[in-house]
Amino acid sequence: MTDLSAPPFSSRHIGPSEAEQQRMLEAVGFESVADLVAVAVPEAIRAKDRLKLPAAVGEDEAIAELRALAGRNRVLTSMIGLGYHDTITPAVIRRNLLENPGWYTAYTPYQPEISQGRLEALLNFQTVVTDLTGLPVAGASLLDEATAAAEAMTLARRAGRSTSNVFVVDADALPQTKAVLATRAEPLGIELVEHSLDGELPECFGLLVQYPGASGRLRDFRAVAAAAHEAGALVVAAADLLALTLVAAPGELGADIAIGSSQRFGVPFGFGGPHAAYMSVREGLQRQLPGRLVGVSVDADGDPAYRLALQTREQHIRREKATSNICTAQVLLAVIAGMYAVYHGPEGLRRIAHRVHRHAVALADGLREAGLEVVHQEFFDTVLVRVPGSVPGGAAAVVTAAAERGVNIWQAGEDHVSVSCDEKTGAAELAKVWAAFGIDRTGADLDSDALPASLLRESAYLTHPVFHSHRSETAMLRYLRKLQDKDIALDRSMIPLGSCTMKLNATTEMEPITWPEFAGIHPYAPDDQVGGYRELIGTLEDWLAEVTGYDRVSIQPNAGSQGEFAGLLAIRAYHRAGGQDSRDVCLIPSSAHGTNAASAVMAGMRVVVVACDSDGNVDLADLDAKIDKHRDRLAAIMVTYPSTHGVYEESITEVCAKVHEAGGQVYVDGANLNALVGLAKPGEFGADVSHLNLHKTFCIPHGGGGPGVGPVAVRGHLAAYLPGHPLHNGTPVGPVSAAPYGSAGILPISWAYVRMMGSEGLTAATEQAILSANYLARRLAPHYPVLYTGRGGLVAHECIIDLRQITKETGVTVDDVAKRLIDYGFHAPTMSFPVAGTLMIEPTESEDLGELDRFADAMIAIRGEISKVASGEYDKTDNPLRNAPHTAESVSADEWPHPYSRSEAAYPVPSLRDGKYWVPVRRIDQAYGDRNLVCSCPPLEAYED
Amino acid sequence: MTDLSAPPFSSRHIGPSEAEQQRMLEAVGFESVADLVAVAVPEAIRAKDRLKLPAAVGEDEAIAELRALAGRNRVLTSMIGLGYHDTITPAVIRRNLLENPGWYTAYTPYQPEISQGRLEALLNFQTVVTDLTGLPVAGASLLDEATAAAEAMTLARRAGRSTSNVFVVDADALPQTKAVLATRAEPLGIELVEHSLDGELPECFGLLVQYPGASGRLRDFRAVAAAAHEAGALVVAAADLLALTLVAAPGELGADIAIGSSQRFGVPFGFGGPHAAYMSVREGLQRQLPGRLVGVSVDADGDPAYRLALQTREQHIRREKATSNICTAQVLLAVIAGMYAVYHGPEGLRRIAHRVHRHAVALADGLREAGLEVVHQEFFDTVLVRVPGSVPGGAAAVVTAAAERGVNIWQAGEDHVSVSCDEKTGAAELAKVWAAFGIDRTGADLDSDALPASLLRESAYLTHPVFHSHRSETAMLRYLRKLQDKDIALDRSMIPLGSCTMKLNATTEMEPITWPEFAGIHPYAPDDQVGGYRELIGTLEDWLAEVTGYDRVSIQPNAGSQGEFAGLLAIRAYHRAGGQDSRDVCLIPSSAHGTNAASAVMAGMRVVVVACDSDGNVDLADLDAKIDKHRDRLAAIMVTYPSTHGVYEESITEVCAKVHEAGGQVYVDGANLNALVGLAKPGEFGADVSHLNLHKTFCIPHGGGGPGVGPVAVRGHLAAYLPGHPLHNGTPVGPVSAAPYGSAGILPISWAYVRMMGSEGLTAATEQAILSANYLARRLAPHYPVLYTGRGGLVAHECIIDLRQITKETGVTVDDVAKRLIDYGFHAPTMSFPVAGTLMIEPTESEDLGELDRFADAMIAIRGEISKVASGEYDKTDNPLRNAPHTAESVSADEWPHPYSRSEAAYPVPSLRDGKYWVPVRRIDQAYGDRNLVCSCPPLEAYED
Repeated sequence: MTDLSAPPFSSRHIGPSEAEQQRMLEAVGFESVADLVAVAVPEAIRAKDRLKLPAAVGEDEAIAELRALAGRNRVLTSMIGLGYHDTITPAVIRRNLLENPGWYTAYTPYQPEISQGRLEALLNFQTVVTDLTGLPVAGASLLDEATAAAEAMTLARRAGRSTSNVFVVDADALPQTKAVLATRAEPLGIELVEHSLDGELPECFGLLVQYPGASGRLRDFRAVAAAAHEAGALVVAAADLLALTLVAAPGELGADIAIGSSQRFGVPFGFGGPHAAYMSVREGLQRQLPGRLVGVSVDADGDPAYRLALQTREQHIRREKATSNICTAQVLLAVIAGMYAVYHGPEGLRRIAHRVHRHAVALADGLREAGLEVVHQEFFDTVLVRVPGSVPGGAAAVVTAAAERGVNIWQAGEDHVSVSCDEKTGAAELAKVWAAFGIDRTGADLDSDALPASLLRESAYLTHPVFHSHRSETAMLRYLRKLQDKDIALDRSMIPLGSCTMKLNATTEMEPITWPEFAGIHPYAPDDQVGGYRELIGTLEDWLAEVTGYDRVSIQPNAGSQGEFAGLLAIRAYHRAGGQDSRDVCLIPSSAHGTNAASAVMAGMRVVVVACDSDGNVDLADLDAKIDKHRDRLAAIMVTYPSTHGVYEESITEVCAKVHEAGGQVYVDGANLNALVGLAKPGEFGADVSHLNLHKTFCIPHGGGGPGVGPVAVRGHLAAYLPGHPLHNGTPVGPVSAAPYGSAGILPISWAYVRMMGSEGLTAATEQAILSANYLARRLAPHYPVLYTGRGGLVAHECIIDLRQITKETGVTVDDVAKRLIDYGFHAPTMSFPVAGTLMIEPTESEDLGELDRFADAMIAIRGEISKVASGEYDKTDNPLRNAPHTAESVSADEWPHPYSRSEAAYPVPSLRDGKYWVPVRRIDQAYGDRNLVCSCPPLEAYED
Repeated sequence: MTDLSAPPFSSRHIGPSEAEQQRMLEAVGFESVADLVAVAVPEAIRAKDRLKLPAAVGEDEAIAELRALAGRNRVLTSMIGLGYHDTITPAVIRRNLLENPGWYTAYTPYQPEISQGRLEALLNFQTVVTDLTGLPVAGASLLDEATAAAEAMTLARRAGRSTSNVFVVDADALPQTKAVLATRAEPLGIELVEHSLDGELPECFGLLVQYPGASGRLRDFRAVAAAAHEAGALVVAAADLLALTLVAAPGELGADIAIGSSQRFGVPFGFGGPHAAYMSVREGLQRQLPGRLVGVSVDADGDPAYRLALQTREQHIRREKATSNICTAQVLLAVIAGMYAVYHGPEGLRRIAHRVHRHAVALADGLREAGLEVVHQEFFDTVLVRVPGSVPGGAAAVVTAAAERGVNIWQAGEDHVSVSCDEKTGAAELAKVWAAFGIDRTGADLDSDALPASLLRESAYLTHPVFHSHRSETAMLRYLRKLQDKDIALDRSMIPLGSCTMKLNATTEMEPITWPEFAGIHPYAPDDQVGGYRELIGTLEDWLAEVTGYDRVSIQPNAGSQGEFAGLLAIRAYHRAGGQDSRDVCLIPSSAHGTNAASAVMAGMRVVVVACDSDGNVDLADLDAKIDKHRDRLAAIMVTYPSTHGVYEESITEVCAKVHEAGGQVYVDGANLNALVGLAKPGEFGADVSHLNLHKTFCIPHGGGGPGVGPVAVRGHLAAYLPGHPLHNGTPVGPVSAAPYGSAGILPISWAYVRMMGSEGLTAATEQAILSANYLARRLAPHYPVLYTGRGGLVAHECIIDLRQITKETGVTVDDVAKRLIDYGFHAPTMSFPVAGTLMIEPTESEDLGELDRFADAMIAIRGEISKVASGEYDKTDNPLRNAPHTAESVSADEWPHPYSRSEAAYPVPSLRDGKYWVPVRRIDQAYGDRNLVCSCPPLEAYED
């Protein structure tokens, strides 16, 4: 009988059809995928059983199940505050940005020429931050407010002139900020001191003031800042961007660094994330900024162009000398926040802030008039109320009464309650809150302020035309479209980035994240309102444990880097619990991603590098030597598997055994898990801990450079040391992210992926990823040397092609090839990682044969162009490679000064004649931008000819 | 006190800010908008009061209210059938097409060069239809199956050789088809005869066979068709496209014409619409096809290009000689249906059909085994069951029992029930249906068929590569993006089409239409499940009545043309009810849109043309003469107000009075209502009936050429003659559309618009539309003559610029200007309507000043180019105007044969250097395409160089 069931979702997720798969197998020289995998993947690591996951369901059923889960979350009005505030996402931004694959499937803007749209959007975000904080340089977002605070703490330590190891944190800081600071301070030997900031400060290298405080208190911290500066300490202000539209900027009050969240600029709660945090710094600190920074430079024609600035600061270059392990930013969310400011403009933001503030004042007035004590007289949006013992049930009863009326408020200690107003607060919400206190009152007079006179903001902000030109929905829609059209994302063509796994982000996976029942939940909503989230998270953690062979998973880390850090903290805590405090050496192969080393340092470890052999594998002799040398202090080894060279190392089980034998723990970086799922489990083949990247293997989109999710997975003996949270009861290890469940709002994506793929689908995806990589390697090998291969001459899920000899012979560089690929409509592969002078290509399972061939054809055509340079047919310097990419403007210029033809420049292969992507700028001068640092929106005159 | 409330939605809908509005007023020479309106709009028609509408709410509140309405609809499993079947819209298509402004804000593809994407998508749809129906030419969609049947009936009458006036309709045709045929037959003097098609046929000019029948019966109609042909009649098959993947094509059985719905190809129910109907015809009938037809032609470079073919057939050209009044198609829905076929491919569709069929067979088996009588042995998806009196409560009780289990089935007469299976039907649904019959049975054997052996399909279909190349979600996503990128829609730039009102389609208006509670409701769902829809429809009808000054509104007509027809039917019925059967003359000014005349003929009227004076106004002397001549037979006058010349005619009240005095009724075409809302009400200033275009004034997007909604609004004396429906009790006039509430699924758009604008917002929009038109007229007047103006030299909401003298002097035509505008990034204004050789421009209120100026600047720059032709600086034939539009390929070609420069061709104004739209083809040869008619996907070889 014919199979009448719908084709499984996996047949939509996986690009090649069965017939195409057969053709690819033939090209690679195997009869079946099973045969290929049997040769490629070492027998020693192969999983014995299929994954124990529920049978895959179709897209419609998955959506129905997600709707049922969503139905078990209850969306109440949230007036909890504490760093998370309700906000209205303008519908035009939700649909055309957050729900638009042209934005969410984009990669990190490392290739700036094809990223001008999102770079402009990020520059808007940076301008919002610099303008509002009154500090001249802002980065392109950090992971969350709490980790931004931790980054500011370490920045203060290295940039300040104090020799103290004390960092002072405002007693009125957000609880999650205090907790993350504690987690991050301890391994670095920083002593964290909580202080009211009233009276004398202890000696310290830095301090953090929350502005306004968690309790709502709005204080003028000029004097504190001056005192701190006097003592050689740096001042960090954790500031609310919306409040800053009304009150003096941190930079005006003496802050050296400002950090905070931009969530309330249009980004939904999502049960805690993802949201974009920000950091801005005063002049002189810009080269110390962690994370990414967008700057303005010029292109080959001298026209302004955007790019990431000062990249040499970053962890993947500085390795163990890095000052932060941050890789991912929160681009998609930062872009939303920036667009929210574009949409409202300065006067709109000010109006919203005023409205929020005056509702808070009206709330306080009503409480006071009913005889209740409002603790602070000066506040922005949050009212702290003492609930005396005379109120039956006390503060807890008031919170319960509010919830019964549909409003969540916050119990701040035994006998206080705090209530935060936000963009959605109106008279109806105030009436409910009053009613919870037993006050029968309606209406709200919005005519008085409670802002300290000394703090009223006088300086202008958002004066750039971009914040004044896109106010109608039509104008906003077109601005979003225009920026989107400048970029290459997955909705246009393959993005063959090695190690980054740019696979399909299916619509069915994406749809639920903007449903109100997932988007509208505050991270501190009571447990009985979040049954759906808790089940989804628990199930996903269990599934991920099954896939990786570990015993426990925590989805809290909101980026791979944070998962890495959490994994190393677990190892550290485990050794300490066993009395092995001195174990602090972390072995890292020379081929590792620099982040590994940076994370190890952050976790208080010393990095010892292990050599690799000429095949790129861990040099076992050197490993033995290093283990011998550091045996008693050996804490861990960090290896990536398959290796960063895209090869299944045969020796992995041996490596694990050697480290274990010496008392160390094995950390397997899960960056390349896309080559293992369903075939092998790190938790079974010898590792103790891994982090995964849900934004790679598990289909969370890259969002143009974030969000990411980096769960940490551990074997049983490390389970007690997974990240905790101040909201939960005492855990030995503190939180690594602000929210208890990290970026919970996007977990439905990975849940849906696993649910729809099942064991067979997931395994088939891995197999296809391996086949596709080998197919490309086979097609390219006659033209470019393929650098590393494992058994049978096979690669894993990616392959490295080596241009070093070509460069030597012809002068054509990796950069030239990367930029020339833009002319062919492609995003470049990963450049010069892990080996300088090479390109690393990961096709993923989602690309069909047509697209793989189109890419291979482009690479081969480019090789032909290189040959023309070699033969002298093309000029050594004035050729289509060196001049790439070519804009439409350049190829249609009245003068054509090049010795090659316009059509060679623009249409080197015929398929480009149907819907060619036109790059908006020519090659960007990276050095110029770093020499002439401009990191906020340039004035319009910059664009005049 | 500062106003702290959020700016109203109207400030987002209306493009210009207050400051911009002031600048525009200055340019036009007025102090205030009130002053402008006081001069522009005749006092005699001004409404006395503001609109009585509820106060406007913000976007968030409107969404909350719509969610509450949606919550009052209950989405049950629908197994009702009767022409509407549940279907799974692939999520990738929903998000990237149905929810994507790049697709839904596009206009009708009259400018084919900037419409290649949607034209290709429509060609896919046509290919699906021709392949599946086995007839060689299909149109680009019709409004619904029932009106398509009516169009087929009239096609049969004019194309056949029979002199009979009888049209035979299958007794087993869908009830709504029979009813619409009756509505349409009567005024044309066609006698409709219902017949079992068993035994001898009456003499007739055509017959319609439902295939499969409404009862589910699947019959081989070869013999019936042969007999009909023998008698000189044409055979129309109303066929289910999904069934056709398994059974013989209508063309193979002898049908001359096939019609039907493509709804079940991925288009949601939407409580009845919009869905795309189809029509295909045998060789020889293609020039008789009603509606639009996409064909293949070549561009100026000889490359294949798509365009609308055979446009001289259309009503706007043929006027009273037209054979149909259809203007709007259902493009967006046809595109979805075509993409559904692209996504599934022939084997996927066949699998779905097989699955549907075998579930129906399993259902029937279960019923039979329980002793019930299944009426037909041969069926596709629908099982008709006799429910004997012995079952308590009879058929009604079974239907109720099914609903209690969450399934809607259909009571087919006293003692029968019918149950239809669809793509979503599984064992669970069958079990519920059996349970409703009291049968305890689960599971479903899917191993037997009930298709007549003589009807098994043997011919191939969907063999074109497009149906085999986009099967992964990634490939589908990119195909949609690629097509979208070829087109100009409102998300890129202004579309200044006179009379078409291309205003903002706000996201908040659009979001609800894809919510399951609106999208998932069958049009025949029981009343108690559709409380939300009924309230929304009732409220919207009331609001529209208030806005127009009429007493009753029906939203049933699913296009303006159908609203027109319904309005004329009401007039006809009113006269007949008053014993005035002989009143059949319809006066129509010479400037009217051709559709008016076509509709009048369809309503059984004789068209008498009234002359216009040199200002384009109705010539009152000629009106008097025509009234005198036809006084006793005068049925109505149809006028457009403001006139099709974009002018408020001063004489409108006089015109109304004269016609009334002679016993006629006044029909005001609501096409230009955007110039009246809030300022004047046709129902108050003298008209008896109007139709509105919700897809113009009330923000339903044009969808690339449909859907439209054309409510009819009447004064009290005509209220009884609004369209009825067979589902409702006896009404004097039958339905004009298949579904009782027409395209109900998109009514939330207009509801949200009115709800968020309120009286003030709607009025402000009208005022801004008038101001913007006058601003453009003022800016362009020094460069192009503005053809018609009213009082104070003002226009209404659009203006006509006259190129006739320019053409005479320089040879530069309206076409040249329209195509050159593409090079400047704009869609052309309306060409040569209402006056040949002119361009009619309607900016709408949604364009901000920046965009209006950009357009004006383009027009002025083009005028400069024309001057260069005049002066001889440009060659008479080889100039940028005549050669427009210029593709990227043409301006970057290695050889540049033109006397003007490449940069003059590509970048005539500097702003184009930032994000220029590149047209995918050069100017299309219209005549070639009509001479060489190709209306399905051309083979790939056609694209080879």
